[in-house]
Amino acid sequence: MIDSYLYIPPVIGVFGLLVALVLYIIVSKNPAGNEEVTKIGDQIHSGAMVFMRREYSYLIPFTAVVIALVYWKLGSDVALAVFIGALSSAVAGWLGMYAATKANVRTATAAAESGAEKALSIAFYGGSVMGLCVASLGLIGLGTLFYFVGGGDHYQSIEGFGMGASIVALFSRIGGGIFTKSADVGADLVGKLEAGIPEDDPRNPAVIADNVGDNVGDIAGMGSDIFESYCGSMIACIAIAGTLAVSESRSEMMALPLALASIGLIASMIGIIIVRIFSSLSPASALRTGTIGAPVVFIIAAYFLITSLLGEAGVDVWLAVLTGALGGIAIGLITEYYTGSTPVVKIAEAGQTGPATVMITGLAVGMQSVVLPIACIAIIIYISTELTGLYGVGIAAVGMLSTVGITMAIDAYGPVADNAGGIAEMAGMPPEVRKITDELDEQGNTTAAIGKGFAIGAAALAALAIIAAFVETVSANRGEQLVLLLSEPMVLVGLFIGGAIPFLIASMTMTAVGDAAFEMINEIRRQFKEIPGLLEGTAEPDTERCVDIATTAALRKMILPGVIAVGAPPLVGFTLGAESLGGMLAGGLLSCVLMALFMANAGGAWDNAKKYIEKGNLGGKGTDTHAAAVVGDTVGDPFKDTSGPAMNILINVMAIVSLVIAPLL
Amino acid sequence: MIDSYLYIPPVIGVFGLLVALVLYIIVSKNPAGNEEVTKIGDQIHSGAMVFMRREYSYLIPFTAVVIALVYWKLGSDVALAVFIGALSSAVAGWLGMYAATKANVRTATAAAESGAEKALSIAFYGGSVMGLCVASLGLIGLGTLFYFVGGGDHYQSIEGFGMGASIVALFSRIGGGIFTKSADVGADLVGKLEAGIPEDDPRNPAVIADNVGDNVGDIAGMGSDIFESYCGSMIACIAIAGTLAVSESRSEMMALPLALASIGLIASMIGIIIVRIFSSLSPASALRTGTIGAPVVFIIAAYFLITSLLGEAGVDVWLAVLTGALGGIAIGLITEYYTGSTPVVKIAEAGQTGPATVMITGLAVGMQSVVLPIACIAIIIYISTELTGLYGVGIAAVGMLSTVGITMAIDAYGPVADNAGGIAEMAGMPPEVRKITDELDEQGNTTAAIGKGFAIGAAALAALAIIAAFVETVSANRGEQLVLLLSEPMVLVGLFIGGAIPFLIASMTMTAVGDAAFEMINEIRRQFKEIPGLLEGTAEPDTERCVDIATTAALRKMILPGVIAVGAPPLVGFTLGAESLGGMLAGGLLSCVLMALFMANAGGAWDNAKKYIEKGNLGGKGTDTHAAAVVGDTVGDPFKDTSGPAMNILINVMAIVSLVIAPLL
Repeated sequence: MIDSYLYIPPVIGVFGLLVALVLYIIVSKNPAGNEEVTKIGDQIHSGAMVFMRREYSYLIPFTAVVIALVYWKLGSDVALAVFIGALSSAVAGWLGMYAATKANVRTATAAAESGAEKALSIAFYGGSVMGLCVASLGLIGLGTLFYFVGGGDHYQSIEGFGMGASIVALFSRIGGGIFTKSADVGADLVGKLEAGIPEDDPRNPAVIADNVGDNVGDIAGMGSDIFESYCGSMIACIAIAGTLAVSESRSEMMALPLALASIGLIASMIGIIIVRIFSSLSPASALRTGTIGAPVVFIIAAYFLITSLLGEAGVDVWLAVLTGALGGIAIGLITEYYTGSTPVVKIAEAGQTGPATVMITGLAVGMQSVVLPIACIAIIIYISTELTGLYGVGIAAVGMLSTVGITMAIDAYGPVADNAGGIAEMAGMPPEVRKITDELDEQGNTTAAIGKGFAIGAAALAALAIIAAFVETVSANRGEQLVLLLSEPMVLVGLFIGGAIPFLIASMTMTAVGDAAFEMINEIRRQFKEIPGLLEGTAEPDTERCVDIATTAALRKMILPGVIAVGAPPLVGFTLGAESLGGMLAGGLLSCVLMALFMANAGGAWDNAKKYIEKGNLGGKGTDTHAAAVVGDTVGDPFKDTSGPAMNILINVMAIVSLVIAPLL
Repeated sequence: MIDSYLYIPPVIGVFGLLVALVLYIIVSKNPAGNEEVTKIGDQIHSGAMVFMRREYSYLIPFTAVVIALVYWKLGSDVALAVFIGALSSAVAGWLGMYAATKANVRTATAAAESGAEKALSIAFYGGSVMGLCVASLGLIGLGTLFYFVGGGDHYQSIEGFGMGASIVALFSRIGGGIFTKSADVGADLVGKLEAGIPEDDPRNPAVIADNVGDNVGDIAGMGSDIFESYCGSMIACIAIAGTLAVSESRSEMMALPLALASIGLIASMIGIIIVRIFSSLSPASALRTGTIGAPVVFIIAAYFLITSLLGEAGVDVWLAVLTGALGGIAIGLITEYYTGSTPVVKIAEAGQTGPATVMITGLAVGMQSVVLPIACIAIIIYISTELTGLYGVGIAAVGMLSTVGITMAIDAYGPVADNAGGIAEMAGMPPEVRKITDELDEQGNTTAAIGKGFAIGAAALAALAIIAAFVETVSANRGEQLVLLLSEPMVLVGLFIGGAIPFLIASMTMTAVGDAAFEMINEIRRQFKEIPGLLEGTAEPDTERCVDIATTAALRKMILPGVIAVGAPPLVGFTLGAESLGGMLAGGLLSCVLMALFMANAGGAWDNAKKYIEKGNLGGKGTDTHAAAVVGDTVGDPFKDTSGPAMNILINVMAIVSLVIAPLL
């Protein structure tokens, strides 16, 4: 029976981790470059490591309190699972970022010494370490837990794993997001607009902080974000299947998500090989072939896996997986349209009448961009539940996320290439080097847009599945169905509360970026004024002070949003009851998904509108049109990299915390 | 029994209309002013009238099609009710705007010739005509219909009245909103920023269009908006009470909302008298005393009315009314805080680091500002349903809206004073005149902020009550309860669709303003370039062309959002079923309320941040800080006056259309 194969997922996870190690060794064998490059690389690396260490020093006591409360109320099994989940997520983020901050200098040096192909392969391997770590640690952590508690009735402790992972993800995403954007906004506003020096100019005191930010936000933050959706979708399936009556296929349905993720990891590794092979032809087509190839391999293999596990009935489950994968791609393509096509040109053109019209047009584009992805999510919900009930929603999310190894690799590859470009600029490498890294970055961005669409869609489905598991768990414990009637006042009260929380968190994180950027701006202005010879290039800026400002601000400001997200479900659940909590999760889900899409796409569109002008359209750099577009991009920065991404995790944190406390309600 | 008193509400309505007529005569007896003032006044008046006539020429065929469809599917009674509802709303808007465009010139002239007290009284009387028309026509139209169909079983045709009123409101609000803001944004961007001439300068070709816009947007649009919430809340109560088992108090509960509105109208007239009496002391305290006095009178009278109608059980109903009225005031005060206090200063200070930080801070303030009002709404829902079930939610909304006569008077008074200021500027009156009108406008703004909070809160509760009536009506027709389970896929699908529609409508209306403003900007630039002597003041601008551009753009762009709002409920209801439609209404309600609060408050805060700087803070006019704040204000314009207000009506239109088609589902 299935139980005798449960050792396979963690074993595949360990194999994935070994592959990641091999890739890391390949990366690190490449030359770091001359003394100046090495020095800059070390500054970025150590800045990132200091941030992570300080972030974890905040996280440890917070998680310890949560674990203690869980231990007190729900016993040692769940507490242990929370610990393992938090640890896995933290380790995945740390390893990935460690590799990325080694790959960035080597990418720059390779671009200078060996050309585009070599640079692509280093940057992509650097990103792949992150992708493989996320997927492998998910399989190792969750797979090992499942191996021990198995498909029996103790499976509920597994939910703690998701809670631990989500809490770490929440803090990493919010902390990293605030760090990266306060540095970015500060560096841009003073450097580009006031001092008139180019981006990544070594005279700018915030430039190291900006590059550190790319790593802690876009790599470590993103990694733990995807990690928690990935594990969350699997846990939701296990929990929904677990509440089914004990039948022949119950154990198989519980084991299925881990099995799918295992073949997804193998498919991802095949995708990485595809990218490597094709990269000698053209970087763009290599990335695209890899991104599409891996899911195709996965979907075909999934058919045989599912039908061999579940027999004839498995075809419906497979179709749900297929729906999820196709829906994810559709959302990705829609995202690509809104952040890279006609709407972007429209925003750029609005720059001709100043920053106000750039803002109006961009906000309108962002609002419009939610409609089709929401339609996709509605269609996925409809089809997958028609096929196999609410388990179908969970397994569709697993379908979207199984090839996370490759999508995450490409997501992380972009910031590595971006960082390499920054390093090339700071080290005064010839412009051709910057051109190579810019091209790599751009190709990564397009593919990453698809990845972002995947992430939002998958997070929404995962959250919905977790909410469904919450309803079933409360019902099972009560011995009667938890009825979430929309005409019930307590459900409505919850719905409104849940709808408002994302606005509160978005507001807090936006404000945090604004405040931190304000401090940063003042510091940069002070250095330009007080350090003689800085603007002339004869003196060095105090970059460490800027890294410190961003770090302190990020860590101080991530606490309250995190506490609200983790605290709201028990507060509402224990005071207003499970009905209100259910309503709150539904309202929160709707509001989070809408805001996530709105903010991510508006931000992406502003970013690309600026880049469109910088390519020479509408007068190019230095015009009023460009200045107007820079305003849009600056507002878009916290939208797309701080507040927007926080929405995904927010709803998953609220959902998984609710699921964990469900037995107490 | 109650049935023999049903003639009272329409009679009180007729009395209210007579009082409005008297006030109009008093206003029109005042001198319009010298030739130049009269000419400007006539231009504004005829521009507004041309817009209204053209708007109604679009509305008539659309409404005719709707009426024909209703006649075909639901019979002549409902079709007639739709017609009367649409007509009442259109007449209320037209009368109010007619009076307002007579009062504006007279206010300016009175400010110049007799001083602040006289100017206040004319402007306030001008606004009061609108307030009394809205309240009176609601009582006459709805009261007469109710008189004929009575508390019997044919009451359902009354719902058609709400549908007719909502459709007119939707088009007036969206059309008026696009008109006013395209003119405003265009006039500001070219006039203030490019040509460097002051606001309302007669050399600016768009200045007449801008002043016309205040009337068609802030007076006619606002009037029909409030009209439909006012009638909607009464209809919801009638419908909910109508589905109750025939008991002793069923007829009384059905008649109660009209009775409450009747005493509310009387209380409003008392409030208007209070303002008149106290205005010789201080305009600010006069307005405040009137705004607070009327609800106090209403609440006390309501106690005696309700207990005499419903006996002992009536106390709970009265408490629900009280909850609604207090909740409305609370939401108003919160709105006042976010759009007039510390947050505004924070936005202004963010202007020191440029427009991008103004945007980030303003968006964050807007997002944060939704939290407490949503909490108020949740509390009102909780308390009122605990007291008297979902009927309580409806009656709480009636409680908020009964004194609409005075709140609407103060809302409409602001734009009249604002217009008077514009006329003073254009006619070259001495600066003291402008100072008086600015003061009047400012005092109106603060009180209007409370009114806006009322409007959003009341619209939310009215919509919720209509949704409850929809559920009851479908259930009654099916013979079994319509079950809107949040764990039901079809409900979830509807929830997501409903959540996305407000984003779509907001995007379309924002884009419409952006596009129309773009046309307007090009026209103004063309005139400045091609009309010799225009900037020197020796030639006259072609103001009619600008009015025409705004009119055409507004009317063309209001069609599609209107069709989507009216068409979505039947489309979803007839294809996906009543469960999805119910989910859609819930999702739409949540999303509309969140967006309405976010957009209205962000826009209000940006507006006041600009005004704060213009008062001389942070360097005052002409500084970079001020320029940055102007960008915020320009983005805030469509937020607070076009897209934000459209949200209120959107959910009410979707809810009332659903209620009307409920018997077919």
